[in-house]
Amino acid sequence: MTTALYPGSFDPVTNGHLDIATRAAAIFDRLTVAVFDAPAKNLLFTTKERMDMATEALKGLPNVNVTSFTGLTVDFAREIGASVLVRGLRVMSDFEMELQMAMVNRQLAPGIEVVCLMSSLQYSFLSSSLIKEIAKLGGSIDNMVPEHVARALRQKFPPNSDPDFIPRHLGG
Amino acid sequence: MTTALYPGSFDPVTNGHLDIATRAAAIFDRLTVAVFDAPAKNLLFTTKERMDMATEALKGLPNVNVTSFTGLTVDFAREIGASVLVRGLRVMSDFEMELQMAMVNRQLAPGIEVVCLMSSLQYSFLSSSLIKEIAKLGGSIDNMVPEHVARALRQKFPPNSDPDFIPRHLGG
Amino acid sequence: MTTALYPGSFDPVTNGHLDIATRAAAIFDRLTVAVFDAPAKNLLFTTKERMDMATEALKGLPNVNVTSFTGLTVDFAREIGASVLVRGLRVMSDFEMELQMAMVNRQLAPGIEVVCLMSSLQYSFLSSSLIKEIAKLGGSIDNMVPEHVARALRQKFPPNSDPDFIPRHLGG
Amino acid sequence: MTTALYPGSFDPVTNGHLDIATRAAAIFDRLTVAVFDAPAKNLLFTTKERMDMATEALKGLPNVNVTSFTGLTVDFAREIGASVLVRGLRVMSDFEMELQMAMVNRQLAPGIEVVCLMSSLQYSFLSSSLIKEIAKLGGSIDNMVPEHVARALRQKFPPNSDPDFIPRHLGG
Amino acid sequence: MTTALYPGSFDPVTNGHLDIATRAAAIFDRLTVAVFDAPAKNLLFTTKERMDMATEALKGLPNVNVTSFTGLTVDFAREIGASVLVRGLRVMSDFEMELQMAMVNRQLAPGIEVVCLMSSLQYSFLSSSLIKEIAKLGGSIDNMVPEHVARALRQKFPPNSDPDFIPRHLGG
Amino acid sequence: MTTALYPGSFDPVTNGHLDIATRAAAIFDRLTVAVFDAPAKNLLFTTKERMDMATEALKGLPNVNVTSFTGLTVDFAREIGASVLVRGLRVMSDFEMELQMAMVNRQLAPGIEVVCLMSSLQYSFLSSSLIKEIAKLGGSIDNMVPEHVARALRQKFPPNSDPDFIPRHLGG
Repeated sequence: MTTALYPGSFDPVTNGHLDIATRAAAIFDRLTVAVFDAPAKNLLFTTKERMDMATEALKGLPNVNVTSFTGLTVDFAREIGASVLVRGLRVMSDFEMELQMAMVNRQLAPGIEVVCLMSSLQYSFLSSSLIKEIAKLGGSIDNMVPEHVARALRQKFPPNSDPDFIPRHLGG
Repeated sequence: MTTALYPGSFDPVTNGHLDIATRAAAIFDRLTVAVFDAPAKNLLFTTKERMDMATEALKGLPNVNVTSFTGLTVDFAREIGASVLVRGLRVMSDFEMELQMAMVNRQLAPGIEVVCLMSSLQYSFLSSSLIKEIAKLGGSIDNMVPEHVARALRQKFPPNSDPDFIPRHLGG
Repeated sequence: MTTALYPGSFDPVTNGHLDIATRAAAIFDRLTVAVFDAPAKNLLFTTKERMDMATEALKGLPNVNVTSFTGLTVDFAREIGASVLVRGLRVMSDFEMELQMAMVNRQLAPGIEVVCLMSSLQYSFLSSSLIKEIAKLGGSIDNMVPEHVARALRQKFPPNSDPDFIPRHLGG
Repeated sequence: MTTALYPGSFDPVTNGHLDIATRAAAIFDRLTVAVFDAPAKNLLFTTKERMDMATEALKGLPNVNVTSFTGLTVDFAREIGASVLVRGLRVMSDFEMELQMAMVNRQLAPGIEVVCLMSSLQYSFLSSSLIKEIAKLGGSIDNMVPEHVARALRQKFPPNSDPDFIPRHLGG
Repeated sequence: MTTALYPGSFDPVTNGHLDIATRAAAIFDRLTVAVFDAPAKNLLFTTKERMDMATEALKGLPNVNVTSFTGLTVDFAREIGASVLVRGLRVMSDFEMELQMAMVNRQLAPGIEVVCLMSSLQYSFLSSSLIKEIAKLGGSIDNMVPEHVARALRQKFPPNSDPDFIPRHLGG
Repeated sequence: MTTALYPGSFDPVTNGHLDIATRAAAIFDRLTVAVFDAPAKNLLFTTKERMDMATEALKGLPNVNVTSFTGLTVDFAREIGASVLVRGLRVMSDFEMELQMAMVNRQLAPGIEVVCLMSSLQYSFLSSSLIKEIAKLGGSIDNMVPEHVARALRQKFPPNSDPDFIPRHLGG
């Protein structure tokens, strides 16, 4: 039986994350989605909020559970008996970061394999930070996150709130 | 008649930006250069300063006007009747960011086309942040920005001022 | 006689840096390893600590000296009579940044050549920031930095200290 | 009035080509789709077949005409009064080739601008050679090319014909 | 139970292929290594030779079998009940090709997942074609392929045979 | 004293090659430019022609000599006492190929260092094959190769000769 671990910040979980988790759940016996537990000056949601949103979104997948963790991902993988780390690949720069991560994780924990899955084309341009940027600027995020996540984002960014940041992609 | 929108932070406008704007003005009927209006803790110049420098630099192009905007770029494009978003391509990582931006903008506003132009080789390594880094470290920026922009940068960074940052490219 | 300059933040020096310095010292007559002197809110070690760690690590190479500098790298190169800037290439994004740096440095100082060496495969995934991340999260950095650097990192990050950051590669 | 030229082998025209042509026709006054006229040991279709398929596929766009050409693209552009070369961007390696082409074309013909458009995500993985590979191996190409092109491909590759090539992507 | 398919030309099988197959065999219940059966003007070894070398090299892995196939990989996957296609990632251009392949395979066969594994650093620069190039030029391939494959390559390229090709990497 | 080897096909030598050779000659004591001696069905010029053109082009550099070689580059480097292999970097895909070559050469000959130099921006889009393509299609190559090379190319491709190839960049 192969247990896979899908770690991340999930701030918040996106349809792209759910796509990867669904694909991983179909090919591995058990999947643990693990939210990194950080105090998170730079995060939008608390660890509990991030876990709750992911749990709600993944409740239809029986062999998936959601938890949180601290410390090195590979140490947590060993703790829960996971032999596979799942990663979603989207763009070129992802690939480099994933390659670097895979190599250093392999040195830290030789028995744990990094497995890369490719998200659906329609989600291949999504990221949590991009979605937060769209929400801040008042754009529609309806096909990018589940409805309960969209609601949570709209509460964080009410209409006509001033952006206090320089948008990288979608504004200037 | 095709109206094109060239959005950016322009903090400050560089010879690379001017190269792209000149190329765009030659192939589209009207070009609006739009400065993103941000409070800008992380910007060097105010929105007004950034607009004034761009306006001065582009005054020789009759079918170009400079303005500022907030909110989503695609919403502003619709507001001014622009069907084309102009982007300048320089390096690989630009391309990825532009591709991501194009895809999400297409989802947000299907009728607006992203058009990528390639800057002259001699400007292909320039960016506003790199030029600010050179100016901070006391280097010459004379062929990288128009003279009035070079003057403004020299006023911000007088000689022998201490850098309060870690240079990424040109120092350590 | 060719003098080469290998500039960097070296916060701290890694086995990858030492690999590049050793290769450069074998093909050039003299090599100066130069630590950028920054106040460094974002650095972990002081300029003196960074210089001391590099000096200790490189003491076995007779034609190498370690120093610090401020201002533009090319200005410092001219000051010490170096005609070559040494850079280590690891990953694709390195290459782009190096290409950009080489082009702007060439404009600032036409007589100084940028020379890129490739690190050993085993160090190709290392960076100072990644190693600091591993140390913060309590992982082993024994084959990534010299022993005296590993000791210095362990003193900065005692076991069971809480991470105050969101890990990019190795945690969430 | 801006005339744009969209050159290619179009062996055969794909839905990705049609997507780019449609986008270009919407933002430029006139678009010429030009099939390179080559004896074509390595092509599947004759120049006439390639032109006929493109003409049929683009007949719904009133400001588009299809023709053939030989020699340098920029020479043909000057001949027909086109000031814009249209190119479709799909993947990273496309971008490099396009950048190289843009730079050499700019040296050969400074007044002609290369304009890059991005295809729809659903066509971003298509290429004529990949589609020919799928057709050779007996796969369905129904959503990848117009129906009349699919018919032409099926005639070239009847079922149970032996592949005389090593598939790069879809077979071994 | 998850059956995975690892398809390729394997002309010949390398230590990099064996590394990926070993990793895949550890995380999936059953692995089929499938040699594409091509007449192969451009191949060095016959289908039978390629299968025999792979079989010998993989005989120590009980849940792995070697076979050959023709036609689309996804059709063969369905035929043998495989829900996973295994691919090894080495360099950037691999990634692009794999992404393209994954997307078109997903359109051809939505239920089959492409899973990318990363080879060991020491094999990350190996390819069958590079190894054949080294062997042709008289270099040592001892740590790049199993001993029985090295023997077969030496028989194909006796010492002092003239290269009838332009080496891309290792000669001119 | 450091001897450097700059190997290649040089079919024919371009201004980009000369730029790299000039840079290498400035930082190393001696430079050998070595033309790979291949029967060369796919080459345009004979080994002697390629050597003669390179010799003529480099005659102004006193510490440079031109020769030919067969076999592995690293074996030839050892034969002439070169400890450095010089390579010119232009584009991203160059970098990957160079990285792969450096790694396999390092395994074949650990004492020989690969050193990458960056060509001038104005030559960064040139390659021998692109220049041959331009010459075949009747374009001007005057700023891309030395005059004697341009003459040789014009003799190979008289005006109005039919292209027997599909241009990749500059035609269709």
